[in-house]
Amino acid sequence: MTQKKLRLGAFMRPVSIHTAAWRYPGGTPDANFNLKALVQYAQTLERGKFDAFFMADHLAVLNMPMDALKRSATVTSFDPLTLLPALAMATKHLGLIATASSTFEPAYTIARRFASLDHISEGRAGWNLVTTSNPDAALNFGLDDQMPHAERYARAREFFDVVTGLWDSWADDAFIRDVENGIYFDPARLHVLDHKGKYLKVRGPLNIARPVQGWPVIVQAGASDAGRQLAAETAEMVFAAGGPIADARAFYADVKGRAAKVGRNPDHIKILPGAFVVVGDSLDEAKEKRARLDGLVNYDSSIAAVSMALGVDARKFDPDKPLPDDIPETEASKSGRDRVIQLGKRENLTVRQIAGRLGGYGGLGMLGTPAMIADQMEEWLVTEACDGFNVMFPYLPGGLDDFVDKVVPELQRRGLFRTEYEGTTLRENLGLPRPENRFFAEKARAAE
Amino acid sequence: MTQKKLRLGAFMRPVSIHTAAWRYPGGTPDANFNLKALVQYAQTLERGKFDAFFMADHLAVLNMPMDALKRSATVTSFDPLTLLPALAMATKHLGLIATASSTFEPAYTIARRFASLDHISEGRAGWNLVTTSNPDAALNFGLDDQMPHAERYARAREFFDVVTGLWDSWADDAFIRDVENGIYFDPARLHVLDHKGKYLKVRGPLNIARPVQGWPVIVQAGASDAGRQLAAETAEMVFAAGGPIADARAFYADVKGRAAKVGRNPDHIKILPGAFVVVGDSLDEAKEKRARLDGLVNYDSSIAAVSMALGVDARKFDPDKPLPDDIPETEASKSGRDRVIQLGKRENLTVRQIAGRLGGYGGLGMLGTPAMIADQMEEWLVTEACDGFNVMFPYLPGGLDDFVDKVVPELQRRGLFRTEYEGTTLRENLGLPRPENRFFAEKARAAE
Repeated sequence: MTQKKLRLGAFMRPVSIHTAAWRYPGGTPDANFNLKALVQYAQTLERGKFDAFFMADHLAVLNMPMDALKRSATVTSFDPLTLLPALAMATKHLGLIATASSTFEPAYTIARRFASLDHISEGRAGWNLVTTSNPDAALNFGLDDQMPHAERYARAREFFDVVTGLWDSWADDAFIRDVENGIYFDPARLHVLDHKGKYLKVRGPLNIARPVQGWPVIVQAGASDAGRQLAAETAEMVFAAGGPIADARAFYADVKGRAAKVGRNPDHIKILPGAFVVVGDSLDEAKEKRARLDGLVNYDSSIAAVSMALGVDARKFDPDKPLPDDIPETEASKSGRDRVIQLGKRENLTVRQIAGRLGGYGGLGMLGTPAMIADQMEEWLVTEACDGFNVMFPYLPGGLDDFVDKVVPELQRRGLFRTEYEGTTLRENLGLPRPENRFFAEKARAAE
Repeated sequence: MTQKKLRLGAFMRPVSIHTAAWRYPGGTPDANFNLKALVQYAQTLERGKFDAFFMADHLAVLNMPMDALKRSATVTSFDPLTLLPALAMATKHLGLIATASSTFEPAYTIARRFASLDHISEGRAGWNLVTTSNPDAALNFGLDDQMPHAERYARAREFFDVVTGLWDSWADDAFIRDVENGIYFDPARLHVLDHKGKYLKVRGPLNIARPVQGWPVIVQAGASDAGRQLAAETAEMVFAAGGPIADARAFYADVKGRAAKVGRNPDHIKILPGAFVVVGDSLDEAKEKRARLDGLVNYDSSIAAVSMALGVDARKFDPDKPLPDDIPETEASKSGRDRVIQLGKRENLTVRQIAGRLGGYGGLGMLGTPAMIADQMEEWLVTEACDGFNVMFPYLPGGLDDFVDKVVPELQRRGLFRTEYEGTTLRENLGLPRPENRFFAEKARAAE
């Protein structure tokens, strides 16, 4: 049996998720605004044989108090669906995953823009379907408050059906371009969707040919019950939360099980937790980098995250001492409290250091030499905690270069990661099948 | 006084507007689908010092009977806002104008995508604001019928205010990126729009920095009274209908006069009629090209256009003879009837040839040697019928190459057209000022 291989996405926000990345020595303070820098990152990722550049997104500026907001480098960014066509021109193999909301945009333009990106990139587009939980975003789109959670997910399910239905408007062989007789397409190979559902009414057909990949790759990040179910029914890549490896294994088994239950092949839904990776030539060097980075997080902003997790006002603690032992349990925050207390004890951190960790990036982290990081990734892969990772880099370009130049070769040496792209499309590289056109599948099958 | 110069946009649909262009010998049948071809056209336009690649658009497939539709090469195309970032990467000077509707898309995403295109292209974006009259488009966006004309225009006016207000969310100097103190932007240089109008409710601020050009260049094509007024109040380039030169002069005077009346500088609204240009080494060769092209238009489809213009069923006429002299006047179609009868007499055309002309492209045409075309363009320019043209090419790449290689040098020789780009942005090349930020203008003026 061939060894199972890691899939690696690069989770770009559009650069680092760490709130102090822009302040790190050698970092790129204006990276979110800097097309040349983003092109360079994409090309480095391609050199490292990454599956995809995965562009997160949010749709509002005012999502935290101004005193914290003014310190944020991710308060603005290029629109993903506008940036990725530009990156497509600077790369040849790298997948290009854009985040787009099913709550605020018309299904027709979402379908057309992803189809366009897929054609322009010759089959490298992916759609991270989000329902946008941020209530501040709703205010930018004519609403007074966010749509309720259950409604957002019900709408997302219908939205997915409409978008994929529009992608299937034209059979792959619809455009005959018969110059002699002046016939451009075969009307029998065109389907009018005529969707009338609970949330959406869309006639179709879509005014662009079927995407190169049939459909762009569908990505989701839902963690709630409704989110997992939506992913199991529709997603081909899941951005998972990470967390302790045991939790990740349970999540992996749950989502793959749900996919099987609805009749899908569980191999066709790839689970990729986010992993914040800091590479050093020694463990100490990696630790020192992470501490330096976390130390650049503003204390006033980050201590609020500690207070929230603990359920008490953490500003009263001495920043340069460990957490006191007598922090009371509260009803609201048991798991958060335990997690923070354990983190402080395990790594022997001061309150300030804990604040930097939580305020910088509090999710799954990996840290150490290339071999140590490869060990962790291998363990996650072989014990079915994941199919790969959406890697987050601590600062750019240095943290990205370190991963590509040091970790990737180690993964390749172990046979855990590709040395050449397997195919020409994102689907082919991820090992995902090209979806049949639901309206013209029979003829395609008969012709095989 | 410096001689007034022509502004030249290339009206791409996304390639030729002529319905038979894809069938012309040496044409490119799949050009609408073909990124490499579109890149080549953009680079040719830049070699020809064109101001802009102007991408028309429509938002529905089913806009004519299937028997005509199946012959249409423009039934599908890339989404303009997805294609133009890709073309930005393949060019350095060419303006990039995307059509986008104020009727169907959220103002927030429109504002952000055009701002993104402007940043990615370093100041070359333009927005062709359309209200989308096509009722078939409405059916793709959840409506049962199109919005009434007056309501579409009232909404467009408000939409413009919201989008430009969002572009002004950040002062040009808002992002200070103070690494030492960890301050990314100056909160005093951020404006929250908080728009609550008749059609739109949008809080803001926009989650991208102010566009390089302040605002992308605003383009419109309205010809109705409401359309002219909207253009006079907001547009910086007007795609005009063309038509007889006397009509064009009247339109030019009217729109510039309206602009002056609302306190704008009439020089800051450029009137560029569409012009379908066929170049030959002789007049006969140009005529022969046009006749060949029109001859490739399907007769069944195009005779319907003749019937509509005349107000009688033109299928009863002998296709290979001139129009009969006894066509009755009808109330509905006096001007159309006269125009068609005059066309037939002036050029001595058969019914079939008239049908090809109307069904191919019935608007303003120019035809002849490079010198003859330059004569016509010069006359239009100096007699204030226009400030330039949105040139349409009869087939691609040949018709475009002819224009760039033959007509452009003739215009340059006469001093009617630039030999080098004047600036780095579309605004600078068009001679348009950079809009002040309405929320932060005072401080900017005080600093001057």
